[in-house]
Amino acid sequence: MNDITQSSAATQVGDLSTMMQDLGKRAQLAARRMRAATGKAKADALRYMADALIEQKATLQAANELDLQAARERQIAPAMIERLALSDRALEIMTTGLRQIADMDDPVGQISASRTRPNGMRVAQMRVPLGVIGIIYESRPNVTIDAAALSLKSGNATILRGGSEAFHSNQALAQIISSSLERAGLPKEAVQVVPTTDRDAVGLLVTMNDYVDVIVPRGGKSLIQRLSTEATVPLIKHLDGNCHVYVDEFADLEKATRIVFNAKTYRYGICGTMETLLVHRNIAPAFLPEIARQLQEKGVELRGCEQTRALIANVAPATEEDWETEFAAAILAIRIVDSMDQAMDHIAQYSSEHTESIVTENLSLAERFQREVDSSSVMVNLPTCFADGFEYGLGAEIGISTNRLHARGPVGLEGLTTYKWVLHGNGQMRG
Amino acid sequence: MNDITQSSAATQVGDLSTMMQDLGKRAQLAARRMRAATGKAKADALRYMADALIEQKATLQAANELDLQAARERQIAPAMIERLALSDRALEIMTTGLRQIADMDDPVGQISASRTRPNGMRVAQMRVPLGVIGIIYESRPNVTIDAAALSLKSGNATILRGGSEAFHSNQALAQIISSSLERAGLPKEAVQVVPTTDRDAVGLLVTMNDYVDVIVPRGGKSLIQRLSTEATVPLIKHLDGNCHVYVDEFADLEKATRIVFNAKTYRYGICGTMETLLVHRNIAPAFLPEIARQLQEKGVELRGCEQTRALIANVAPATEEDWETEFAAAILAIRIVDSMDQAMDHIAQYSSEHTESIVTENLSLAERFQREVDSSSVMVNLPTCFADGFEYGLGAEIGISTNRLHARGPVGLEGLTTYKWVLHGNGQMRG
Repeated sequence: MNDITQSSAATQVGDLSTMMQDLGKRAQLAARRMRAATGKAKADALRYMADALIEQKATLQAANELDLQAARERQIAPAMIERLALSDRALEIMTTGLRQIADMDDPVGQISASRTRPNGMRVAQMRVPLGVIGIIYESRPNVTIDAAALSLKSGNATILRGGSEAFHSNQALAQIISSSLERAGLPKEAVQVVPTTDRDAVGLLVTMNDYVDVIVPRGGKSLIQRLSTEATVPLIKHLDGNCHVYVDEFADLEKATRIVFNAKTYRYGICGTMETLLVHRNIAPAFLPEIARQLQEKGVELRGCEQTRALIANVAPATEEDWETEFAAAILAIRIVDSMDQAMDHIAQYSSEHTESIVTENLSLAERFQREVDSSSVMVNLPTCFADGFEYGLGAEIGISTNRLHARGPVGLEGLTTYKWVLHGNGQMRG
Repeated sequence: MNDITQSSAATQVGDLSTMMQDLGKRAQLAARRMRAATGKAKADALRYMADALIEQKATLQAANELDLQAARERQIAPAMIERLALSDRALEIMTTGLRQIADMDDPVGQISASRTRPNGMRVAQMRVPLGVIGIIYESRPNVTIDAAALSLKSGNATILRGGSEAFHSNQALAQIISSSLERAGLPKEAVQVVPTTDRDAVGLLVTMNDYVDVIVPRGGKSLIQRLSTEATVPLIKHLDGNCHVYVDEFADLEKATRIVFNAKTYRYGICGTMETLLVHRNIAPAFLPEIARQLQEKGVELRGCEQTRALIANVAPATEEDWETEFAAAILAIRIVDSMDQAMDHIAQYSSEHTESIVTENLSLAERFQREVDSSSVMVNLPTCFADGFEYGLGAEIGISTNRLHARGPVGLEGLTTYKWVLHGNGQMRG
């Protein structure tokens, strides 16, 4: 284990660049071997990892303690320290996750779109790994295991770059991953953890187009923004979750109240949380006072348009900036609209194209909304906070994408794969 | 019709930039309306275009004559001039293509991956247009119609930028497209042709990330290389078609001869043409002399490894550069290999990941080759020149992609779409 710590900021740029290139080359070679890996070998490696997390608990927790001590010395917030801890409970959850991913169907090699052409040639698509995936994330060490597991299951080689706060924990987890891969007969370079906390390594990783096929960033908005600017390798990412619920004039009020309350208060910090509520003017007088009371009682600050403020008390005026903002907090913007078209105009103007929902009992309006609103998830009679790979039945989630190309919305194993065309013939000739 | 011609190189950059931004904004608005377009309206527009090409033949051919005259004055090669001509025959082919695309199933709105979750929530994927597509191409004016038709059918708005040699023809075709869109009740800005030959317009188009979702370049390698460097908008593209046929020791020799001959000689200039032939050493003495005779008789220059040169006459030594080169000409590199693994190593090192083929009667070797070779198309007992959307049954082709993300291999209508998640519930709550 290469024990370069933060002092390595003094590493010469040339050395770091060589080290990252070497990681890239090894990943590329491993990716080629991983394409031929059987589903059994991959599942075995995941189960060995699960076993080793428990068997080597003491070693892991000792390495984790180094990170925890450093965090305490730097007086990091208790919530952050808790996220950093490899507690018995955290290790158990990671173990369960690994076994679940091991049990999932192997996406690689699946055949679709099969057809036979008039000349007898058979044409189909075969699902195959993407290649080399770079995953960049912040302090939680459990992401090291989750991300490694998803990349491995989908047959990719991965370069993981975790937060510097979890450096020792991640290096110890990397050892477990490597030895599990080898035990299953797979190349240990199929999962590599960047062995330095030098921040320049990130900039190098996201520009290694010769070796890295895609980058998945997992972390806060500032990380994603930085990577969006620097990266030349494609990113699977979302920047904002400015999500809307539109309560239509034909909504069932009881259902609408439940959906809106859940969409805002399930968790304030997740990307599927509703940030703006749009309400049809015909239903606003009957609907808004009660939901406002519930939300305010829960401690949610309301900011509204003039019409909203005329209907309910203690509502600050909403500004242009409020419509644009993902509050990620106990704040909700409310706007009364004249029609579904006005609601859709508002969404087209302000949404981050993440997740929107309509509450209505009118089927044709629901269908129009779902067809015309152009977000990665469009829901009917559901709270936006359902936007999540596990909730959608993907079995796992590497992240959520608001890209339009490749993978959109919650990204599971399939988003870490691509396809190739496979053709079978018998000496047919063209022309 | 804005009649700015090449003299517009003097246009001020600010003006050009404003003009391109305006095109982008209009395209984005049109894209929103196109998402709601019915399959019937789109098919109608395509049929109106087909009718108009015939009805307005005289106008079109008059505009085309301006381009042809300019080309003749610049003493452009006769083959190029032929490609530029909107002859009766060329217009007929375009008309047939339009009617075929009109008849195809509408990809937009198709539902897949549908499931019901334990809480009763229904989750599915809906196919939707990508948004705004920029298409950049060279002299052939028929591409204006093809590209407009595919983008329109898939519900996108398009900005087309054709070659300056076809400027007048493209502007006349643009008029027909606009009026057909309007007649079908669709926004005429759903297809816009850049109204200037100023080359800086291309650089602007490929960096308008706020307005353009994807760029499809159609043209020679120098165009693609230039765009790959400049573009910040994602490209659906391929750069090289350095394709391989591997004749295995278990090949049927008669079949192998037919396949190899077709793979090289069907057309020298298309991207699926075989550029390197790999032959298992055990079969080389029986196979190579006859196929070499046929190819040399056809005028194909052979360049081979030492072992090849020991077996057949008039073969120049193949250099490292030959293995790397897409000749796009009557030249073939030949290498004798010790095993399928060595053939796959050669392909991994030199291939452009476009199309490779194995000739063998051994099923397990065929399956291994198909699984482990990582190209956009991998064939068994077929010539690589079959790599084509029409041959694969896509009904149409906007291009071939060697990207790993989004669309791979021949790209049809589906490659110009993406999906969104659509969910139906009844007031379910999370947590």
